[in-house]
Order: sequence, then C-alpha cells, then structure tokens
Amino acid sequence: MAGSTFGTLFKVTTWGESHGKALGAVIDGCPAGLYLNEDDIQPFLDRRKPGQTSIATPRKETDQVEILSGVFEGKTTGTPISLMVRNTSQKSSDYSEIASYYRPGHADYTFDAKYGFRDYTGGGRSSGRETTGRVAAGAVALKILKEMGISLMAYTRSIGPVSIEMQSFDREAIYSTATCMPDKEADRRALAYLKGCMENKDSSGGVIECIVDGLPAGIGDPVFEKLDANLSKALMSIGSVKAVEIGDGILVSQALGSQNNDPFVWKDKKIAKKTNHAGGILGGISDGSQIVLRAHIKPTPSIFSPQETVNKKGENIEIAIKGRHDPVIVPRAVVVVEAMAALTLLDACMLNMAARVDYLKKFYKRT
Amino acid sequence: MAGSTFGTLFKVTTWGESHGKALGAVIDGCPAGLYLNEDDIQPFLDRRKPGQTSIATPRKETDQVEILSGVFEGKTTGTPISLMVRNTSQKSSDYSEIASYYRPGHADYTFDAKYGFRDYTGGGRSSGRETTGRVAAGAVALKILKEMGISLMAYTRSIGPVSIEMQSFDREAIYSTATCMPDKEADRRALAYLKGCMENKDSSGGVIECIVDGLPAGIGDPVFEKLDANLSKALMSIGSVKAVEIGDGILVSQALGSQNNDPFVWKDKKIAKKTNHAGGILGGISDGSQIVLRAHIKPTPSIFSPQETVNKKGENIEIAIKGRHDPVIVPRAVVVVEAMAALTLLDACMLNMAARVDYLKKFYKRT
Amino acid sequence: MAGSTFGTLFKVTTWGESHGKALGAVIDGCPAGLYLNEDDIQPFLDRRKPGQTSIATPRKETDQVEILSGVFEGKTTGTPISLMVRNTSQKSSDYSEIASYYRPGHADYTFDAKYGFRDYTGGGRSSGRETTGRVAAGAVALKILKEMGISLMAYTRSIGPVSIEMQSFDREAIYSTATCMPDKEADRRALAYLKGCMENKDSSGGVIECIVDGLPAGIGDPVFEKLDANLSKALMSIGSVKAVEIGDGILVSQALGSQNNDPFVWKDKKIAKKTNHAGGILGGISDGSQIVLRAHIKPTPSIFSPQETVNKKGENIEIAIKGRHDPVIVPRAVVVVEAMAALTLLDACMLNMAARVDYLKKFYKRT
Amino acid sequence: MAGSTFGTLFKVTTWGESHGKALGAVIDGCPAGLYLNEDDIQPFLDRRKPGQTSIATPRKETDQVEILSGVFEGKTTGTPISLMVRNTSQKSSDYSEIASYYRPGHADYTFDAKYGFRDYTGGGRSSGRETTGRVAAGAVALKILKEMGISLMAYTRSIGPVSIEMQSFDREAIYSTATCMPDKEADRRALAYLKGCMENKDSSGGVIECIVDGLPAGIGDPVFEKLDANLSKALMSIGSVKAVEIGDGILVSQALGSQNNDPFVWKDKKIAKKTNHAGGILGGISDGSQIVLRAHIKPTPSIFSPQETVNKKGENIEIAIKGRHDPVIVPRAVVVVEAMAALTLLDACMLNMAARVDYLKKFYKRT
Repeated sequence: MAGSTFGTLFKVTTWGESHGKALGAVIDGCPAGLYLNEDDIQPFLDRRKPGQTSIATPRKETDQVEILSGVFEGKTTGTPISLMVRNTSQKSSDYSEIASYYRPGHADYTFDAKYGFRDYTGGGRSSGRETTGRVAAGAVALKILKEMGISLMAYTRSIGPVSIEMQSFDREAIYSTATCMPDKEADRRALAYLKGCMENKDSSGGVIECIVDGLPAGIGDPVFEKLDANLSKALMSIGSVKAVEIGDGILVSQALGSQNNDPFVWKDKKIAKKTNHAGGILGGISDGSQIVLRAHIKPTPSIFSPQETVNKKGENIEIAIKGRHDPVIVPRAVVVVEAMAALTLLDACMLNMAARVDYLKKFYKRT
Repeated sequence: MAGSTFGTLFKVTTWGESHGKALGAVIDGCPAGLYLNEDDIQPFLDRRKPGQTSIATPRKETDQVEILSGVFEGKTTGTPISLMVRNTSQKSSDYSEIASYYRPGHADYTFDAKYGFRDYTGGGRSSGRETTGRVAAGAVALKILKEMGISLMAYTRSIGPVSIEMQSFDREAIYSTATCMPDKEADRRALAYLKGCMENKDSSGGVIECIVDGLPAGIGDPVFEKLDANLSKALMSIGSVKAVEIGDGILVSQALGSQNNDPFVWKDKKIAKKTNHAGGILGGISDGSQIVLRAHIKPTPSIFSPQETVNKKGENIEIAIKGRHDPVIVPRAVVVVEAMAALTLLDACMLNMAARVDYLKKFYKRT
Repeated sequence: MAGSTFGTLFKVTTWGESHGKALGAVIDGCPAGLYLNEDDIQPFLDRRKPGQTSIATPRKETDQVEILSGVFEGKTTGTPISLMVRNTSQKSSDYSEIASYYRPGHADYTFDAKYGFRDYTGGGRSSGRETTGRVAAGAVALKILKEMGISLMAYTRSIGPVSIEMQSFDREAIYSTATCMPDKEADRRALAYLKGCMENKDSSGGVIECIVDGLPAGIGDPVFEKLDANLSKALMSIGSVKAVEIGDGILVSQALGSQNNDPFVWKDKKIAKKTNHAGGILGGISDGSQIVLRAHIKPTPSIFSPQETVNKKGENIEIAIKGRHDPVIVPRAVVVVEAMAALTLLDACMLNMAARVDYLKKFYKRT
Repeated sequence: MAGSTFGTLFKVTTWGESHGKALGAVIDGCPAGLYLNEDDIQPFLDRRKPGQTSIATPRKETDQVEILSGVFEGKTTGTPISLMVRNTSQKSSDYSEIASYYRPGHADYTFDAKYGFRDYTGGGRSSGRETTGRVAAGAVALKILKEMGISLMAYTRSIGPVSIEMQSFDREAIYSTATCMPDKEADRRALAYLKGCMENKDSSGGVIECIVDGLPAGIGDPVFEKLDANLSKALMSIGSVKAVEIGDGILVSQALGSQNNDPFVWKDKKIAKKTNHAGGILGGISDGSQIVLRAHIKPTPSIFSPQETVNKKGENIEIAIKGRHDPVIVPRAVVVVEAMAALTLLDACMLNMAARVDYLKKFYKRT
C-alpha cells in the first residue's frame, strides 16, 4: 500500500533508504510565489545531522540538499518541488550477519512479515535517515508559516530522568546544547546520564515538546480531521514515538473538570483563555492559544549489550549489535517533530480557506 | 473542509448533530457477502447509550439503527451501507442563554471562529452524540474482523485516581459494571469517587485501554501510514481524548533500551516476543503480538459549579451550566474507542492485500 | 473498494439502490453560511423525475428530499449535509426471472463478477436512480456557484439523428420541451423519432451539452488534476456515457493547428479569446471563456425486442424485457450532467484558493 | 493545489519541468518482490523520445532513467521507487520574447492566471516533457500487469484525414513506423500529409487507440470510480487530448439499442459477448472482453505561421513561433496513453482484491 505521502493540499511524498543512492521528497501543492532556495532548507538538515558531540554517531552525512524542480527565477511556481539528498556514506560493510536475524526493537521482522524480504543495509526505509525528506519538506512549510505569522519551536524536554520545562521561546538556547535542551544545567546532567548509558552498553529515551505561536483560532475540523488527531498522527508516524500528548495530556485523566477547563476571558479586545490545559485545541479546532504537543520517544533499540533473538532459520540466538549508534535519538528528532507539526499545520491552514461561503464570494470577486 | 470521512478502502462518512433530525454513517467499500442486519449493530449502540446508572444522563436515547441501503437478501452487496438513527429526544429547550456565551472546555468558541456561527443546541456536531455513526460503522468492521479471527476489547482502565490493570480477556466482566471496569471492587471505588465529584459539582477524567488479539504480523506501513500513527489519529479524533499511548507509552521516555526492547523467541514453530513493551507494533507494522492502546480522556467540561467565561458581546461573565451531564465520559466512550480501532485495523488489513506481487499473481490466477 | 465519494474539498458520498428503502447523499465540506432548504434542491430532483410525457416511464417517483443534518437556522453550518429521498415505489414484483439471467447492455453480469452476487431488483446500485443523490448534492453546488457568479446550463443537443446547436443561454426553452431540446421544431422531430423507436421495440441514444459561464481563468491544475480530466471523469461516471468531448472534441483530430488555435485578444481591458475551439480550458486550467462539454449517451439497454443472452446456469437463451423503460435516457440525464459538472467546478474553485503564497498571507491577515 | 499524484494504491507522483534540472516520478505502493531494473523502463522512454525521422524534433534527449530507491537486490521492496531523468538539453536560449506574450493553444496564459507568473522556458511543467515521469512509472505498471496476464497496446489510429483500423495485436508493426501506425501504406500517406502541413507552417492532430487484453471481468466500481471514468480522466489528463471514447464512443448517440447491446453468449465454458460495442466495460466494471479506448489529440499548438495574440502589456500583437516543434504530437504520445491506461488498470486491480468478505477470509487464513 501507499504510505509515503502526507497531507491533502500541501502534499509531501518522501522516498529513499538508509543506504540507497539518495533520499528525497516531492512537495506537491506548494503555493506559488514563495522565494526559495537550498539555503532555506539546508540549516534544517544540518540540525538533523549528527554533530561532533559525544552522543552522536560519527557518520559523516553531509546531506546536501538539491532542488530539482518547482522553483523558477528564485520563486516556487506552484508545481512539484523535488528535493534530493545523495547518500555519500554507503559503506560496503558486511551485512550478512545482520541479514540473518531480527534485531529486537527494530522493524526487521515486521518488514519481512509484510513484504516477504527486506533491505537489511542500515535499516533500509525504516532507518532514521528516512526523516531526511520530512525535514527538507518541513523547512519549506516552516518558511510559509513564518510569512503567515506562525512560528513553531521544538526542544528536548527530557532525556531519561532529566527533565525541564520551557518557560519562554528561546530558539538559540535550544540549538546551543548537544541535547537540544535550552538549559545548560539540564544539558550537563542529561549528558552525564547518557554517558552512563553508554558505559552500560545501554540507551535512553526522552520527550520532545513542540510549541506553536501565532496560529489563529478556527484551524482544524470537528470530527475525524481534528487538528489534534492529525498532529497526533504526524508525530506518531516518526519512528520510535510511542505516545503523544496535547496540552496537559495524560494528566487530564486524573484531573477534575474544574481544574481542566480553561476559563475564557476578554482581553486586548479579543477572546483569550486564562489557562491553557487544552494545549490550544478545543473540539479539534485551534482556539488561538499556543499549541502544545509532546512526543515520547523510546530508547535507541540498537544497544551493544547482548540480546536474545531469533534468526531466519528459526533458532533462538544471542546477538551483540556493533557499529555506530547514538545512545539517544531525541536530540536529532527535535527538528523532525518540528517539521511534521509544520506540515500538519500548513495543510490545515490551507484547507481552512474554503470553510465559509463568504470566503468564496470574497475571493472570487477579488481574483 | 471535509473532515467527516475516515478510511481509505473501508471508508466511513458520518453525519448528524446532537439535536438535529437524525445521525448516521455511510460505509463505502464494505466487502460484499457479509451477513448483516440491524441486530449486528444495535448492541454496540446500546453500549454507547446512557444506562440507568447513577453516573449516566437520564436522557432517553433509544437510538434505533436502521439500515437504509447496501444490504440485499441479508448480505452486504459491496455498495454503500447507509445507517441512520433518528433523534427522538429533541427537547424544545430554551437555548438562548447558552447561545450567548462560550462554555469553557467546549468547542463553542472554536466552532464560531471557524464557521462564523454555530449550532448551539446540545453541542451540535461537537456533541458526544456525533459518535453514534462511528459506533454503528465500527460494529460492521468488528463483525468482519471477527470473521478474520481478529478480536478487540476496550475497557475502562482508570477513572480519576482509581486504576486497574486487565490481566485477561473477559468481555462479560467489562459490560457488567457501570464504569466498564472489569473489576467489581475497582468499579465500587470509582463510583464512590464519581459520587464525590457530583457532590462537588465537578467531573472526572479517565483512561480507556484497547487490546487487540489475533492481528497477524505485517499489517500497517513503514512511513506516514504507520499502524500506530493511524490508531493514534483514530483515538485522538474522539472528543475529549488528550493523549494516546501504544504499548508502554509514556514510560518509554524514561526506560533503558535493555528494558524496552522485546526479545524475539522461536515458539510453537513461529516467531514471538518474550515481552510486549512495543504494544504489538514495530516500525509502524504489526508484529503478531497483542496491540495495546490507551486513550486519556479529559473530565466532562460541563460542570455545575460556577465558571468564568466570555459572552458574544465581549463581556467577562460568570456562568453555571444546567441540564443533564455525566460526571465522566469514559464508560460511554469505551465502545467508541473499540469502534475507531476496529475501523483502522480493518482498513489496514484490506490495504495490505496488495502488498506483494505474489499476492496479485495468486489472486488473479484464482479469480 | 470505496467508489461512492466524489470531490476533494466539496466531498459528496451517495448511497442507495433502485428498490431499497431510500437513496441519498452526504455532502461533507460544504462551506458554512449558505442559506439552504429543501426548496433549493427539490426543483432539480423534479427535473430528473419522469414526467407525464410519452417518452418517460409512468413510474410515480415523488422523490421528496429531506435535509437531515448540516443546516441550522436556515444556513449550512460547515458540517455534513445529509440528504435523503425515500423510495416510495418499491413494487413487490416478481424478479425471479430477471435474477436468473444477464441483461445485455446492463451491469448484471459485471456486478456478479465483482461481488459474487447482485441486487437484481430494478438494477440495484447500477440503476439510473443512483443519480438521485448526485442531483441533490449538485443542486447545493449550483447554488454556491451561482452566488460566485458562475452558471451552468445543460441541454439535449441530439437524440438519434436529430441534432441542434444552441446559440444562446435560454434556460426556460430547455425545460419547456419533453426532450430538453431548447428548440420546438427539433423537439417535435426527436419525439417523432422516439415514437418510431418505441414502435420497433427499440431505443435511442443522444448527446448532452453543458455550457459554463462566468468561470474565471486560473481554475484547475496542470497535470493529473486537469480541469478537463476531472470533468471528463465526472461525466463518464454517469451510467451510459461512452464518450466525452471538451470544446471541439473529436474534431480536433482532423483539424489543422492554424484552425484549432484560439487567438488571444485584448478586449474590455482584459484578455479574451477570438474563438473557443479549446472549450475554455488550456493546459488543464480554465482560460476565462465558456467551458463547453459534451457527453455521448448510449441507447437505453432495456429494449422490448427479443435478445440473446446467457442465464446463470450457463445456457444460451432468448429473452424479452418487460416493464416500464424510457426509449431514451438523455432528457432525464440532462440535470445529472449539470450536477456532475457543478460538483467538479466548485471543488476546483475551492482548491484554487490556496494556489499562491500571497493568497495565504492576505487571508490570514484578514481572518 | 496538489495535482501531480495519480492513483490510490499504486500511487504515482511526477515532478519536473521542460528545462529544469531533471524530471521524475515516485511510485508509492508498488507491490514488493518485482524484479526491476533500469532496462525494464528505458525502452518505454525511448519510445517517447524523438527519433531521427522527418516529423520529430531533432532535440537530443537521451532521457536516461535512474532508479534512486525502492529496489534492493534487484527486487522492489514495497517502498517508494524514485525514478529520475536528468535534463541534458537545457539550452541557454533567449526566452525573453516568449516570456513577453501568450502563445495561442498553450497554457501560458492560464498558468499566469493561476499562479501569478510562469516558467516560460520551454513550457515549464506544461511541456510534453512532463510525461517523462508518467511513462517511467507506467513501464513498471505494465511489467506487473504482464505478470498478471494483462497486456496493453496503443497505436496511432489516425493522423489528420489518414485513418486505419487495427485488426490484430501486432506490437512490432506499431513500432516499425514513424507514425506508430501498424500499416506501412497508411504510414506513408500520413507522412505525406504531415509533410504538407510542415510546408504550410501548420500542424496536425490525430487519434490514439489503446486495446487491453486479458483483464478479467469484475474490475472497476459502480458509481464515481467507474473503470471508464478513471480511464477517461487518465487519458484526458494528457496534454492536448480533447475527447475520449470507450468502445463505440460517439457512435452510440446515434445507434439504436438493438444495435448497441452486446448479446452475452456461453462459450468455452464461460460467459463472453458476441460483439463489443461497450468496449469491455458495463456499468463501470470490466466484462472480460477487450477494453477499447480512444484519445483525440489536437494539432501541435506551436505552428510557424503568424498568429494573433496578446502580450503582457495588454497589446494585440502578431507573433511567429520559432524553434523545433513536431508537426504532430500523436506518435510520441502513443506510449503515454499506454502508460496512463496501465496505471489506471493496475490500481483498479489492486483495489479489487478486498471486494468480497470471502477474499479477506481466504487471504488472512493463508498469510
């Protein structure tokens, strides 16, 4: 089945495997007239890229993006934007061992079960590298949202037991730490925790939070296409995410109605909310407050300690995974969360433009 | 925008408002040859219906379903199945007050912001009654899944602070309590807690868990259409759900890789997993274990204690909601969770049938 | 598979069989704020209805439409509009004979081949009555288009050998004849021809033309979703249509480029075309001229003269169809063509609203 | 809006402009396990490529296809197949003149009207080169269909006044002539006619017919997704197609029912039809006979004789188009028609696999 396309009007199709020739994305439905070049996209791919820090894989992924279509004289034309990143780090490793068994926590077995065989080189399509195309396309969505006055910011909220709560929007602080925690002290403690994990040949999970500012009230739909439903799908579609929360999230199940309801208040000549337990969405539609999302990410499944598993012959065996593997996925996934949220929000904003007969009448008189 | 259709091959479109003439669903793409009549659907609507218990609204919703099309000589024909439930309890109440302000925690304001006005009678399309169509369609999906050997079971896992963990599949136990907790003792404590809430003019949230047995490995897709991503959307699209978990869910963010990975094991001549932290899905594709999902549901926003809000004139006011409102939504939402999970799984199973060239070759030789 | 939904933003799902309980349509995505009641829709269903003329079946289909949802205080709310027409003419005929064989020119055999059995009462879902839902939904689309300054008009261009060419928009003239030919003389000749067909126990085909005025330039898309491609699908999806033409249609294959190109000309301070061989669409996008479409409709397959066919036992037999059958489908299909064109155009207009970044910026500053 | 994706399960997204860096297609949903390499695709692109004949543009398009993803160890993996063709013939011509006016018969004006500006180099996305991606993807669909026993063949049925009727399947004969007419004598006459057109600085249209063998009965759907409706859209989405016919096509409007109905007959232990006026489709579903389609293609709009038009300043001017332009598009479009029909049919076959409950039960017991 076809599962590599995301969105209704701003439609993104990604392609590519970890160790194939290239990875990419085709954006179909990007509005015309946006100034766009590779420099708008490259910084986002660089954020996804492993750095030189102690917790990131030393693999040299230059990940240079190339725009192959859809831009003319510096502006988007309304036609598909094809984005490509060549794989430059295709080591001719010996994968025969890994091909012979199923790694716990990975998609090896389920891929085989579905398709009858699998690309066993570096995870194939199930590799984290698959998100390259998402991030490239997300960068374009983020640029448009910015021009509409809507900004998104994701950061690492926790790694293992080390957790922070972000008080204010400070993009620089996020990018200045290896963990993407905008808090030097927490970053230090998280790195110490991760060092311990590595020494124990183990790995850690964590939480990414994404906050959206400037989204007007009225975006999203009341039933199946609720804004939170689509954001939830967007985040859960990122490998390793096992839970998604909106606003107070899991806390609502133990809260009282009197605590959880956000009182409306008339402020600065418009409607606002005194609190934001709802995370900016009521009945599936944005309420004009900040959107608050959280994705819970599991520990890297590739750990160096011995594990039990089964090989293709149906024998119970013990394996020890080798190679380069980050002890935590979270910091590199921050920009992926941001990208997926951006794709969802832009699409919802575009879909909303035909929500009222008055909009149609005004538009078609104008054009 | 169009947001009332769910699914790709087994496509369900719901319609209807709380106090309109009727509510319903059209199932397009239901496979032909299924024995189906109203008795297959009615019990599910009855589970959604308020009972005579202390915690459920006394509104008399008979909710009799009528099959209007798509069934001939007792079997589905492959053409759209139109299901309708007439609204019989359309009280001619005075809604002028409620129309004048925005209830906290409800979609009143966001609906207005999107569409320019709203149906203020009983919540309109944002009412919990909207789920009537989902449950009716879900009953059909559940019947097909059952014939394929796949069974689903949802139950109340917690109400406020009262929580249980289900050990084994016991459908009867679930339906035998007012809370849908399959544990008499927990049910008693939860009811006591809810009684307290009601006395305080307050309300409670809770958690619904859904467990799926018999789903073969290989269902779902690797990227945007991951099985967990679609289940997540399905559950988050139910009003009041604010968080969704798969398997260990939020716990993964604090777990170690060595704890979270599920070892594979060769058992009964096939591959199984020793543990199921993953909740039955790896890389977006089912692994043959139980699927385990949880939805966190916020407290009923309609509470009888006074609340601050804003009216349409832009004045800050205090309101006190009247009428009939359950102190908790959870027990009535159990069957809705089951329905939404069923719709998602059946669709994924149908989509999977063309995953391999060999399947096509075999099928078209056979037909 | 699911094939009863049409459109992307203005999404229509139809349901119902010829002799079932009811037929209907659900419109999802209808913009909010449109004044709508049954009187806006009924006249279109009446045009579809057989009259008392010599060429139309005497079946009494009152076809009263009921709006079940999506309208509040006289206006559309943005939520699904459920439209229903009860079948009142379900004769308890003896269908055992018709059930035993495959009528030539009908879908009897292909339905069986696909679904394993079929609803043999009056054609089931393949009956012309299936278009009831299309016409009801189309009436809503036509009302919105009208408010946007876009008007559609379909008429009978030919019946058998009797053909006319319409020079000017005269809606009254179309409805004033039994054939829907806006030309009394042609109508008379066509009726005479049809009388001959009936005497010979035979039937006739014909051509319906649809002309669209007021559609601005810029609607439609350049590749797979060309406006003519979607109109073509819309018309070809009407039972009995076997060819679709845009503008000069089949004549282009014998024309020279110098004849077929329409020169642009600056007129009344805007761009126009001197001629309209293109039928108002260039490269899949409207050019601001009239849209001109034609559908070629086959003769009614139900004829009273003896025909060869096969029964379910695999025997070659001769049959003679009985009952009530129009000698020509064309006049009753005129409103169906208009409806399908309207659904296509409105959807394309809604989709176009997010075509440029400037549109998004303007819209979201305004809202 | 997003209009560059085709298909539901076998989903193709094309991208690229005439004079951009590259063109391509992403196939999402290709079944796993198909042996595939560039040699399976290149011959189809070569058929699309201009030859060295008198009627084809001398532009050197090598059009070498590269598979960038989705194939592992020679077989499709079930993940997206990215196909790319680099543009090698990007002449740095002076396009300032062409940029200043609107060419009659081209999409110049409508593109501007939609997007606010256009890529004026060689037609941009509206160029015939856009079909490169369609043909590459179609080649993959054709390979799968072949393995299922379904074959397609398109050929030139007419060029201007020179017309043939094909009696039997002879692929070699089609490819052996410059016109793709499988008839040496007709080819000679057509070439003479085209020579005359060129001398007169004019161009010619023509008709392409596509015949499908081996498609089983039961493929397609009864209402909006009729097989003929989708084929019609597929063909009409090819630039320059202005009419589409199925079976007898436009002739049905003048035929009698007794002539047009195809009698069923029991033959070789199965149901067949004595004639095939229907072109293999009844009620939107295949009947097991040959599928017969025709596309009517307009004359190349780029002609060398002087034409009236308007420039961007709003002045009426006369232009004379220069450069390299074929006097007829038809021969190069033959393989495009074949590709589009193949994409439509394969998708319909895949969708059909879940049409009956019995299919699901059998499949899920088997897997």
